[in-house]
Amino acid sequence: MVELDFDKTGGLIPAIAQDHETGEVLMMAFMSRESWEETLTSGMATYYSRSRDKLWKKGETSGHLQVIKEIRIDCDNDTVLLKVKQKGGAACHKGYKSCFFRRVKGMDQLEIVEKKIFDPQAVYNQTDG
Amino acid sequence: MVELDFDKTGGLIPAIAQDHETGEVLMMAFMSRESWEETLTSGMATYYSRSRDKLWKKGETSGHLQVIKEIRIDCDNDTVLLKVKQKGGAACHKGYKSCFFRRVKGMDQLEIVEKKIFDPQAVYNQTDG
Repeated sequence: MVELDFDKTGGLIPAIAQDHETGEVLMMAFMSRESWEETLTSGMATYYSRSRDKLWKKGETSGHLQVIKEIRIDCDNDTVLLKVKQKGGAACHKGYKSCFFRRVKGMDQLEIVEKKIFDPQAVYNQTDG
Repeated sequence: MVELDFDKTGGLIPAIAQDHETGEVLMMAFMSRESWEETLTSGMATYYSRSRDKLWKKGETSGHLQVIKEIRIDCDNDTVLLKVKQKGGAACHKGYKSCFFRRVKGMDQLEIVEKKIFDPQAVYNQTDG
């Protein structure tokens, strides 16, 4: 299995998920070694939830799984780029396609620049997904 | 100035740089609060180098600056997406446009899937940039 440098950052490395067709960056989360191995073997994006302190198969609650289409590794072997097909059309637990749905305007303001795809309250009992 | 959650991860947050035209993910690096403020005020991507333990204006050695075109913030206020114009056409200190120039093939192999844009030895005296 491809070896990544988990030691450099204390066991977790950043993983970026990108829509494999549009190039839109959907989210960033962290991966443990177990997440990485599970992602490779299952073909589904699997992260590590720092808040819940456990393996996190993306979409396990919401059904919004991320099917792996391609994986890129950065030059230092310590960051992963997942090109995925996003089930349900939305990666963000707040109901947007991308977690990066807010744009910095000037230096002081944030504005929402995407449309909400789903109602989080209808999808989650919890706030994570 | 837009406030990000630097405390959650001990002072540094991940920042993803993406080509503002093609959507290609160029690199991932970390930002300190000082990096973030410098990025906003200068309009040039400025990170924090963990290996050199100091502020790192991307391209300060190579000339491969990243001009900020748009900034997105994630739903948790702890990750930044920079949409940039990459000067010199390459972000990676190894000479490729993107640091993610290697693809996972099967589960055991990595293959280079991009063309080298410049010769690192001709551009750097050091290995960072």
